[in-house]
Amino acid sequence: MFQAHYLQQFVEAVFKKIGCPPHEAALAAQVLISADLRGVDSHGIARLAGYVRLYDHGRLNPTPNVHIVHETPSTAVVDGDRGLGLVVAPRAMEIAMEKAEKVGSGWVAVRNSNHFGIAGYHAMMALEKDMIGWTMTNAAPLVTPTFSLDKLLGTNPIAVAVPADEQPPFVADFASTAVAYGKFEILQRKELPAPLGWAQDALGQPTTDSNAVRSGGGLLPLGTDREHGSHKGYGLGAIVDIFSGVLSGANFGPWVPPFATAGFMTAQQAVGLGTGHFLGAMRVDGFQPAADFKRSMDTWIGAFRNARAIEGERVLIPGDPEREMEAQRREAGIPLLGPVVAMLRELAERFELEFEE
Amino acid sequence: MFQAHYLQQFVEAVFKKIGCPPHEAALAAQVLISADLRGVDSHGIARLAGYVRLYDHGRLNPTPNVHIVHETPSTAVVDGDRGLGLVVAPRAMEIAMEKAEKVGSGWVAVRNSNHFGIAGYHAMMALEKDMIGWTMTNAAPLVTPTFSLDKLLGTNPIAVAVPADEQPPFVADFASTAVAYGKFEILQRKELPAPLGWAQDALGQPTTDSNAVRSGGGLLPLGTDREHGSHKGYGLGAIVDIFSGVLSGANFGPWVPPFATAGFMTAQQAVGLGTGHFLGAMRVDGFQPAADFKRSMDTWIGAFRNARAIEGERVLIPGDPEREMEAQRREAGIPLLGPVVAMLRELAERFELEFEE
Repeated sequence: MFQAHYLQQFVEAVFKKIGCPPHEAALAAQVLISADLRGVDSHGIARLAGYVRLYDHGRLNPTPNVHIVHETPSTAVVDGDRGLGLVVAPRAMEIAMEKAEKVGSGWVAVRNSNHFGIAGYHAMMALEKDMIGWTMTNAAPLVTPTFSLDKLLGTNPIAVAVPADEQPPFVADFASTAVAYGKFEILQRKELPAPLGWAQDALGQPTTDSNAVRSGGGLLPLGTDREHGSHKGYGLGAIVDIFSGVLSGANFGPWVPPFATAGFMTAQQAVGLGTGHFLGAMRVDGFQPAADFKRSMDTWIGAFRNARAIEGERVLIPGDPEREMEAQRREAGIPLLGPVVAMLRELAERFELEFEE
Repeated sequence: MFQAHYLQQFVEAVFKKIGCPPHEAALAAQVLISADLRGVDSHGIARLAGYVRLYDHGRLNPTPNVHIVHETPSTAVVDGDRGLGLVVAPRAMEIAMEKAEKVGSGWVAVRNSNHFGIAGYHAMMALEKDMIGWTMTNAAPLVTPTFSLDKLLGTNPIAVAVPADEQPPFVADFASTAVAYGKFEILQRKELPAPLGWAQDALGQPTTDSNAVRSGGGLLPLGTDREHGSHKGYGLGAIVDIFSGVLSGANFGPWVPPFATAGFMTAQQAVGLGTGHFLGAMRVDGFQPAADFKRSMDTWIGAFRNARAIEGERVLIPGDPEREMEAQRREAGIPLLGPVVAMLRELAERFELEFEE
């Protein structure tokens, strides 16, 4: 078990070693560790070596000039200047919130970025200002749209955070696929099959092969098959891609570069700059007094949390499992898998940092 | 087969008979018939008697004063004054577009409305102005969130329309459930079972009973079950409900009134006014020159449309099936089922209108 503040310190030191300014290294570490705290282990410290690889391959600018390319009072395109998505996205969210402060809402499409960690972190930035936060990002293609044999979309998540009064906030944060790719990686390590409905094989047929995505198949959109609405999951992933990639001038669809594998994407294959995000903020009191709205959210949350549940289960509010996990891991520490600890040890050695297990 | 312009004329006449001003009756008819043209028969002229029943029960104001209750430059709450959702929603979308014209984007939450027809119609209003349109609505509870035995959400659809250049626009328009309730009504009429994964029974178990929703069960969120991501479909439906119902001051969750069954919802059960919608518009050139964006959309659409497909199928762009259907039905006419024709005949008799088959 590792205490969050210990990991925070270590990650911060690594980002400083590759040249990030201290306050940006601290922010990036905080975003990354928040994933581990919230139980989204696949998007946390396990990716640290990936960011370093991006740097090693010249795809990461540790001192980016994140800047507005074009704007109106409520919209903007921000260029991330190949900076850490972990830093670019919070900056873009700040811009969205400044616009919301002035004109009620702000919507920022980001180009020239890379992996921004968990979408929920950025959406939740809006909460303390009594705003609703909205974040999305595209990602490298792993998903086969309905009836497609080609992988054309990433797992393209959406996060929406809504403040409440006495209740904890509503925080939905989910990929537009049946499952995240991380679930396959877990099964691959354990050499277990996957449930039907998560992936298709190279011929587009249902499969339980947990290696299907690596051998010509693809992740299935939320809804799994046409009969159960996969065209809706495909539509949702497409919306995320268009807002994040096309509106911003980033890459989109099959052209989104992979997270950390340099060399896969050559210049003539690019249709834009880096990975794209879309971040928005709306002031609650752009619609009604914030106190009234938050009381109504308490009513909403109460109605759902107190619903009659299937025997042995309970009805959760989006954000409940992550919040409960965070409370537990802040107390008891964050468990890291052997390969993740080994990776951190390697980074410690390379950058001459201390890392104690 | 019925020609669209013939049905348009008839529907318009009915709305005038219940007191709608001529131009609003024409608009309402156009929205309604657009559903039939696009193949969404469940949201079209088949609902005409439902709107008339709303009127008969005093739940519909034929001459509403649709007005802004509160606003900022980019946001507003609009009160529909119990008018036809078919008229209230286009008016709210116009307000959103006026705001987008001025400050880049406009977002309007609507309260005190009722069924607004197909979400796609309103989102598509944005296209001719080179804007992206976004519409959502809540609806009476038919859906059981993950692990819930209680029905707490409507089928809560989302529509997003994005302009392209030479390609037809991208128009996603989908419910946040595995299937729309209309599919069950079709099976009920034919006394056929439903595929597993569409509904649960009164104990929350998977069922093929096509009457399950009427006998204590519920529609399942997109994703069907926890293992296949139903919590994501639930999260999506919840976002639609919060934006449409809570932000606007309409009813939300289990309190959303049913479409046309008066008396079901008593005053003390209401938490807000009528049904809620959320409509938004973003100027494409709030992000980049519209011509560049639309060319990129052509590239996006081309990549998806030309993807390798599973044998015997093709990869569709959201909006393709509806556009193809509309072209066909504008030419060949709109087929109406026997009960729908009988309903129209009854209305013709009641209102002393001509109706020729």
